[in-house]
Amino acid sequence: MARDFAAQYGYDIVQLHPGMVAEMGRTVGEADILAFAGVSGDTNPVHLDAEFAAQTQFKERIAHGMLSAGFISAVLGTRLPGPGAIYLSQTLRFRAPVHIGDTVVARVTVKEVIAEKRRVVLETVCLVGETTVVEGEAVVYLPPRQK
Amino acid sequence: MARDFAAQYGYDIVQLHPGMVAEMGRTVGEADILAFAGVSGDTNPVHLDAEFAAQTQFKERIAHGMLSAGFISAVLGTRLPGPGAIYLSQTLRFRAPVHIGDTVVARVTVKEVIAEKRRVVLETVCLVGETTVVEGEAVVYLPPRQK
Amino acid sequence: MARDFAAQYGYDIVQLHPGMVAEMGRTVGEADILAFAGVSGDTNPVHLDAEFAAQTQFKERIAHGMLSAGFISAVLGTRLPGPGAIYLSQTLRFRAPVHIGDTVVARVTVKEVIAEKRRVVLETVCLVGETTVVEGEAVVYLPPRQK
Amino acid sequence: MARDFAAQYGYDIVQLHPGMVAEMGRTVGEADILAFAGVSGDTNPVHLDAEFAAQTQFKERIAHGMLSAGFISAVLGTRLPGPGAIYLSQTLRFRAPVHIGDTVVARVTVKEVIAEKRRVVLETVCLVGETTVVEGEAVVYLPPRQK
Repeated sequence: MARDFAAQYGYDIVQLHPGMVAEMGRTVGEADILAFAGVSGDTNPVHLDAEFAAQTQFKERIAHGMLSAGFISAVLGTRLPGPGAIYLSQTLRFRAPVHIGDTVVARVTVKEVIAEKRRVVLETVCLVGETTVVEGEAVVYLPPRQK
Repeated sequence: MARDFAAQYGYDIVQLHPGMVAEMGRTVGEADILAFAGVSGDTNPVHLDAEFAAQTQFKERIAHGMLSAGFISAVLGTRLPGPGAIYLSQTLRFRAPVHIGDTVVARVTVKEVIAEKRRVVLETVCLVGETTVVEGEAVVYLPPRQK
Repeated sequence: MARDFAAQYGYDIVQLHPGMVAEMGRTVGEADILAFAGVSGDTNPVHLDAEFAAQTQFKERIAHGMLSAGFISAVLGTRLPGPGAIYLSQTLRFRAPVHIGDTVVARVTVKEVIAEKRRVVLETVCLVGETTVVEGEAVVYLPPRQK
Repeated sequence: MARDFAAQYGYDIVQLHPGMVAEMGRTVGEADILAFAGVSGDTNPVHLDAEFAAQTQFKERIAHGMLSAGFISAVLGTRLPGPGAIYLSQTLRFRAPVHIGDTVVARVTVKEVIAEKRRVVLETVCLVGETTVVEGEAVVYLPPRQK
């Protein structure tokens, strides 16, 4: 049986409308911070060195802001719009730190569908409980699908 | 001997001026893509499934755009301004794909120093050879240092 | 805004019927084999030592069979039935080796829905091209959902 | 000096008899769960999202069942019968969850040696303390060795 690639794709442009929401939660542990430091090369001691972090305003190690941005990428790339969408841009405002043990919820909401350009604008936030830790906006492009 | 935390910090606000540059290069392999997929949860098949990727306009697997953004975070957090800087915001325009084997150079250039607010605006780009793959702007805050 | 946990769940028992299919593809590289060896502790040299593997009938390093089983777990846990399903059992027959560079497609097909027990029986196969590398059967339980 | 590959191999068929036992213990932490999620692609939130897991019957995050199956593979592939054995099949019944901090002991016991077919049947269990978390049976094939 041949692979059904069409079944792998996420939403097509005509299926999207403002207000659609998807989210993903991830509990951030030391292992996540270590893994992100390794893959990014961001070895800033505020993430990896508890004694250094204790001297800063954060008082303890915090997660990389760009790790939370990775969770936004995960929602866009796997759920809304899902596979097939091409990431054009992302804005990120880092509003509050993420600590070890926090569960970050990345939530994506369709804001505008520009059908003629096959573009979608999405509001993207990361929350820890009621606190917004990251907020911004993504634009993705949905290429025409092969018939 | 007590730790000399001051020696861990990067540039202070008065040491920064427009035009200062720092960069970091990273050759992106399958292992980087796998690691980023794991830590972010972004298992979009365009990154992990060569047969799926072959059906897309990219023709082969590509790296996550947000992995390149992680390299920007690494330069900001370890070199310019370095440890102590607090990430306020980042804009990202994803201009071209990164393929397996590409060396991504993340380059950060000081654009503006707003001394009274202790803020720095930096131009941030990722290049593969002559091609800009990601571009955007970062704003960081440098907290006053303990004496 | 409170989290919408219901939206995170996969299919409920009444939504499932025989013949439903989901799949996931993963290109297996050296990094995957190394990562699986590390997390499982399965350091069998046929996976990690090219010189040893050259002496075996496989002639080159092969991936762990249980890595392909992990891809079946991924389809069950994220797509069909998706989050909320509880893994009761899995049978696995390892039929052919997976080599570095192969794309493994894990495919899951609903075979039987036992509504009164809230159980689902699924046929589970892993393919590399036309070759079946793993085949077997999974049984999952779908707990009643909170209202 | 040439490598002595024979010294790398585990038990040969004539060395095995019913009742032989081998085991391996592994303490499962957040890092193991993150690593297994990454390599398998199984990002089911019951493993990664503490808030989601709190809504389920498990009340907290649990490890992937297939991670415990990986520990069985490790015992078979490194200790009993060890390198050289070819995995033919495995049955797995997932009997109880594994929580963060649990030490999983994978234990393998030779049940039957079918010398003329060079096959060995092994009972395979994973335990956390006195609790059986996974049980099943493996069949492996031991190819004739080069002289």
